[in-house]
Amino acid sequence: MSKRNIYLKTIPVHEAVATAIAALDRETLVKPESIAVHEALNRVTSEAVHARCSSPTYHSAAMDGYAVKSDTTFPAREGQPLDLIKNKTCIPVNTGNALPDGMDAVIMIENIVDNGDSVSIEAPAFPWQHVRRIGEDIVATEMLLPRNHTISAFDLGALLSAGIYEIKVHEKIRMTFIPTGDEILPFADRPTPKPGEVIESNSQVFRSLALGLDVEFKATLPVRDREDLLAKAVETALQNSHIVVIGAGSSAGSKDFTSKTIAQLGTLLVHGIAVMPGKPTVLGTAQNKLLVGAPGYPVSAVVCFEDVLTPIISWLSGKPTPEREKVQVRLARRTPSKPGMEEIVRLAVGKVGEGYAGVPLARGAGMITTLTKAQGFTRVPAESEGIELNESVEVELFSGKQTLEAILMHVGSHDNTLDLLGDILMGGDTPIRLVSTHAGSMGGLAALKTDVALFAGVHLFDPESGDFNFPFLEKYLPDVDVTVINLAIRHQGFIVPKGNPLNITGIESLRDGKVSFINRQRGAGTRILFDYHLDNAEILPTFVKGYDREEYTHMAVAANVLTGSADCGLGIYAAAKALDLGFVPLAHERYDLIIPDKYMQDKRIISLINLLKSDEIKKAVSELGGYDTPLTGKIMKPGMGLG
Amino acid sequence: MSKRNIYLKTIPVHEAVATAIAALDRETLVKPESIAVHEALNRVTSEAVHARCSSPTYHSAAMDGYAVKSDTTFPAREGQPLDLIKNKTCIPVNTGNALPDGMDAVIMIENIVDNGDSVSIEAPAFPWQHVRRIGEDIVATEMLLPRNHTISAFDLGALLSAGIYEIKVHEKIRMTFIPTGDEILPFADRPTPKPGEVIESNSQVFRSLALGLDVEFKATLPVRDREDLLAKAVETALQNSHIVVIGAGSSAGSKDFTSKTIAQLGTLLVHGIAVMPGKPTVLGTAQNKLLVGAPGYPVSAVVCFEDVLTPIISWLSGKPTPEREKVQVRLARRTPSKPGMEEIVRLAVGKVGEGYAGVPLARGAGMITTLTKAQGFTRVPAESEGIELNESVEVELFSGKQTLEAILMHVGSHDNTLDLLGDILMGGDTPIRLVSTHAGSMGGLAALKTDVALFAGVHLFDPESGDFNFPFLEKYLPDVDVTVINLAIRHQGFIVPKGNPLNITGIESLRDGKVSFINRQRGAGTRILFDYHLDNAEILPTFVKGYDREEYTHMAVAANVLTGSADCGLGIYAAAKALDLGFVPLAHERYDLIIPDKYMQDKRIISLINLLKSDEIKKAVSELGGYDTPLTGKIMKPGMGLG
Repeated sequence: MSKRNIYLKTIPVHEAVATAIAALDRETLVKPESIAVHEALNRVTSEAVHARCSSPTYHSAAMDGYAVKSDTTFPAREGQPLDLIKNKTCIPVNTGNALPDGMDAVIMIENIVDNGDSVSIEAPAFPWQHVRRIGEDIVATEMLLPRNHTISAFDLGALLSAGIYEIKVHEKIRMTFIPTGDEILPFADRPTPKPGEVIESNSQVFRSLALGLDVEFKATLPVRDREDLLAKAVETALQNSHIVVIGAGSSAGSKDFTSKTIAQLGTLLVHGIAVMPGKPTVLGTAQNKLLVGAPGYPVSAVVCFEDVLTPIISWLSGKPTPEREKVQVRLARRTPSKPGMEEIVRLAVGKVGEGYAGVPLARGAGMITTLTKAQGFTRVPAESEGIELNESVEVELFSGKQTLEAILMHVGSHDNTLDLLGDILMGGDTPIRLVSTHAGSMGGLAALKTDVALFAGVHLFDPESGDFNFPFLEKYLPDVDVTVINLAIRHQGFIVPKGNPLNITGIESLRDGKVSFINRQRGAGTRILFDYHLDNAEILPTFVKGYDREEYTHMAVAANVLTGSADCGLGIYAAAKALDLGFVPLAHERYDLIIPDKYMQDKRIISLINLLKSDEIKKAVSELGGYDTPLTGKIMKPGMGLG
Repeated sequence: MSKRNIYLKTIPVHEAVATAIAALDRETLVKPESIAVHEALNRVTSEAVHARCSSPTYHSAAMDGYAVKSDTTFPAREGQPLDLIKNKTCIPVNTGNALPDGMDAVIMIENIVDNGDSVSIEAPAFPWQHVRRIGEDIVATEMLLPRNHTISAFDLGALLSAGIYEIKVHEKIRMTFIPTGDEILPFADRPTPKPGEVIESNSQVFRSLALGLDVEFKATLPVRDREDLLAKAVETALQNSHIVVIGAGSSAGSKDFTSKTIAQLGTLLVHGIAVMPGKPTVLGTAQNKLLVGAPGYPVSAVVCFEDVLTPIISWLSGKPTPEREKVQVRLARRTPSKPGMEEIVRLAVGKVGEGYAGVPLARGAGMITTLTKAQGFTRVPAESEGIELNESVEVELFSGKQTLEAILMHVGSHDNTLDLLGDILMGGDTPIRLVSTHAGSMGGLAALKTDVALFAGVHLFDPESGDFNFPFLEKYLPDVDVTVINLAIRHQGFIVPKGNPLNITGIESLRDGKVSFINRQRGAGTRILFDYHLDNAEILPTFVKGYDREEYTHMAVAANVLTGSADCGLGIYAAAKALDLGFVPLAHERYDLIIPDKYMQDKRIISLINLLKSDEIKKAVSELGGYDTPLTGKIMKPGMGLG
C-alpha cells in the first residue's frame, strides 16, 4: 500500500476560520509594544489613547488681521467708522498667532481700512470672532482613540497635535513561510528551470499579500521532501513567528508531509476546505501558534491566503477583515460548476454599455495568469450547479470599481498584435487597459451578440464569396449594426520545428496520418481555415493525427511544436517567429476588428481607432513579421477580400 | 501698507491639477530603473514585460496517480478491468512531477485498484487527461504585462514563474516636505507646547498619505519665517526630489512667503483653489519639478494632498488616481454652504436601518479631529447653497463600505462615559465602533425623529413632574416606540478653577454679573438645567455674563475655565476632575440611552446593552468619579425620577 494521507472531513471555509480562532489564545499570543507615534501608521492600538495637550494650547487667531477687545468695537457701524490704534487698541496678527492678552476677537484684514498708524472698521467684532479657542480641536485628557483602532494618517496628525509621541500597539503579526518540494528552485538563484523543475514563487505572492496586511514576513529556503527536515524547519520557524506556513505538501500525495508534521508537533485542526481552488488547505496549532499547510498550486495558495489566513490575521491584529468592493456583473458564458464545493471563478470584467460584463477565465488551479488577467472573481455556491449565460453575479474586485471604466473588453480571436495594442494603449495620459479573452472568431461574434465586449477580433474566410468576415456577420449578427476596421493582413501557415525536420510542405503532408497535428478549438477562424483546406484537398479530419487536440492560442500551438508534443500546427507566422520555429505558409487572411456602432463614440474605442490609424502601430506590427498593413485602420466593406 | 501677497485668481481644483500636469515633462522628470522582481510590488512597469520561460516548462502531472500512455488504456471498461504494470506500463507520479517519456495521461490515485506490483483500471484514460501541458499557464515570449502596469502580488507570482528576475519600472516619486513657521516645534523633540507654539504634525500626515501612494518621502526640519532661509531650503530639496512641498505660508499673510519664493525660483502657476478647506494651495514649477505650497491648517493640508497632489503623483507614477468607495447617505442636519466655492464637509456615517445616515462634523479647517472622527466626506458643489435636512448625498468613504456595518451611531448629549463605552466595545471579537456626535439632548431626540442614529444619550429634567426624559419623549417623539435604559446618574455642578478662587457657592454667585460664565449650546440638557436653576433663583439670563458664549461639550467648558477664558461653567464632575479643576455640586440627574424599539434587535445595540448590564462598565464609570450606577443597564419607566 502507498504511504498516503487521508483527508480529514472537508469543511466550509468559515468553519475552518472559526476553528482556528477558537483554538488560539490571542491575549497571550500577540503582545502589546510601545512605538513612536510617527512610525505607527496602520498599526493597531492595544489600549485607549487620551490627549496629553489641548490643541490649540492657546486662543489663536484664525485669520490674518487685527486682534481687538470686542467690546471696544461695538460703536462701529456702516458709515460710522471707528478708528483703532495699531499696537494699542488693535494688534496685527497672522493666522495661528496667540491672541494678545486681553484681546478676544480678530477682524479680518479684508475688513479694515489701513490708515498707517491706525485702522478703521465699519462693523463691530463679536466676542471670539475668528478665534480658535483653546481646546477647539482637542481637549487634554479626552479619549482620542479607543483600543483596537487602526491608526490612519489623520490619527497621526491628531496624536502629534495632542503631544503624544509614544503609543501602545499590538505587535506586528510575524509569519514565516517554508517552501517545500524536491522540484522547487529558489528564485533568488535566478534559475532557468529544466523539465521537472519549478521556480519557487508562492513565497513572494504570500509576502506581498502579507505586507498588505502589515504582517512581518520571512521566507526560508525551500525544504526538500523529507519529514525530518520539514519538522525541523517548522520548529525553528515557530520560535519567532505567530504563524508558520508550509508551502505545498498539503494534499494527500505520498510526499505530502504537512498534515502529519502538524499533527506530530501540535494539533491538526483542519485538513481540506470546501472550496475550489484551495481545497488542500491544512490548519493546526502548536505552542499556541498557527500552523498552516498552503496548497502548492498558485491559485489554490492565493485562495488559502485570502479566504482563510486573511480573516485569522485580521482577528489576531485587531483589524476588521478587509473586504473587496463588489459589483454586479453579467456573465458572457455559461459556467457549470460541480455541486458540493464552493468554486471561485476568476473573471475578466469591464464596463460595457451601462453595466459590467465578465468573461470567465480558465479554471486550472495551476494558472497564476488567470489571477493576473482577472479584474475579480465570483463565488459559485456549493449548492449551485453553475452560472447561466447572461446571468448577473456578484463579483469581488481586485481594484476599485472605477478601474473598470478604463478597461477595453475584447473577446475574439487571438493575435499577437493585440498585445502590441494593449501595451501602447497603456502609454497615454489616460491609460486604457485592453483585456483580451481568446474565444476564437466565432466566440467573438457570440460576445457581440450578448453584448459583453466592446469589440471582437475576427478572421473568418468565406470560401463561397472569397470574402472575409462580412458573410459571417450577416449570418450570425444580423441585428447588430457594426463597423469593421482592419487590424492587419496576416500570414497563416504550418508551425513546424526549426529546420522543418519532417519536411512538411503543406496540407498534403497530413494525408497519411503520420505527422501529428495540434489543432485549435472549435469556432476559431484558424480551425475553419484548416477545415477549408482539408476539404479542398479531400482529406478527412479523422485521418489527421491529433485533429481532436485543441489549443486556444497561436502561442500555445507553437509551444506544443517547440516541445515535440506535436509535429506541427496551423498558426500565424508571428507565433512561429516568437519561439524561433519554422513556418510553412498556407494563406493570407484579413484580421478585422468588429465594433458595434453603439460603441463607436466610447472613449476607449476612440483611442483604439486613433491608434489603429497611426504610423506607430503599422510600424510595430510590421516589425513582428508575418503581417501586411495596407488596410490597417481602414473601414472595411463587403466584398473587399484582401483589398 | 503691509507686505501682503495677493492671491492669483482662485481656480477649480481640476484646473489646478491640469495646469500642473501640462507644465511638467514626465518623460524627462521620471526615469526608468531596473529592480529585482521580488521587490517590485506596487511599482509600475516602464515597458512591456515578456515571458522568458514557459510555465510549466514541461508536461506535468496535474494529479497524484499513475502516468500512462493513453492508447494502451483504451480496452479498459467497467467490469472489464485492465492491469497495468507499475514502473512499466504505468508510473507513479505526484502532482507537479514531469510526465515520464512516452506517457501522455495521468490516472488519479482514486480511480485505480492497487494490486502490489500492478494496478487495475476500469476506464480508459483519454490523451492529456490530468496533465498540465507545457505553456498551459505562460508561453515563453508572450507579453505578461503592458507598460504603466501596477505590479500586484499575483503579477509577482507570474513574473517569477516566467523566469523573470529583473524588471524595468518607473523610479519612485520622491517628495520633500519643508515645514515652516516661527511657532512650529519639531515633533521629534517631543515638546510640550507653550501658548503661541504648535507641534509640527502635517509632515507626518503627508508622509503617511505619500507612503500610501508609494512615494519616497523626506521631511526637513522646520524652517523659520524668513524668505532667504525658505529659498535656500527649497533649492536644496529640489536637488533630489520630484516634488517639493512647503508646509504653511501659502496664504496671503505678511509672513506667507511661499508664492513669492516659488515665483523667484521658477514659475508660479496656481495661487488659490476654489475649495474649502484647502483654498490657500500654491502650485508652481522649477527645474521641471513640482513646487507646492500646502496650507498650514491640517484639514486644508489634507485636501491639498488628496485633491491636488494625489492626481498629479498618480500621473507621474503611471498609476490611475485612486478613488474612494462611494455611498449614498441621508444627512441628519441642514448644512448651508457658501456658494462660489466647493466645500468638503466631513461626516460621521453609519448604517442605520436599511440605509446610511450621516452627521456633519464641525467645519473648521484647523480641526484634525473632524477627519479622525469622520468615516467620509461629501462635496457641496460650488453652485450649491448647501444640503437640506434628510437630503441624500454622495459620500466618499475613508474605509470600505462594510466598516459602516460595525458603526454604532450615537447622536445626543455629551458624556465622558461614552468614551468608556466606545473603548470597551472595540475589545470584542467583533469590534463595534461607537461614533458619537454631540448635539445635546434635544439634538439626540431630533436625530431619533429623523432616524439617523441608533440611540440617543439624553438627560432632560422636567421641573413640573420632577421626572427625567419621559415628558420630553412624549412631547417630541410621540410617534416613535422607544426603550429607555439608564447609563448612569451623574453629578452636575459648577466647574471652577482649582481652589475655587472666586469662592463660587452656587447659582447665587452669578446674580451680580461679575463672574464670567461659559454656557452650553441651545438644546443641551445642561443648559436646560441651568435655565431651570436661574428661573428658580429668579436671575435673568441677560444678567449672566457670558450667557451667550456656547460650547458643545463638558470638556470644552472645562478647558475654558482651565485657561481663564471663563470663571465658571456648568458641567459634570468627570470633566472637572479630568482637567484637575474645582467642582461646586448643583444637582444629580439621570443620563439615559433612548433606543428606538426597532433597533433593539440590532447586533450593535445588543452588544451595547450587554455591556451596560456588565459589572465591567459599572466599575469603570464609578472610577471616573461623579457618577452613581444603581440604575445602570436597567430599563426606565415614567415617573422613576432618580430611582
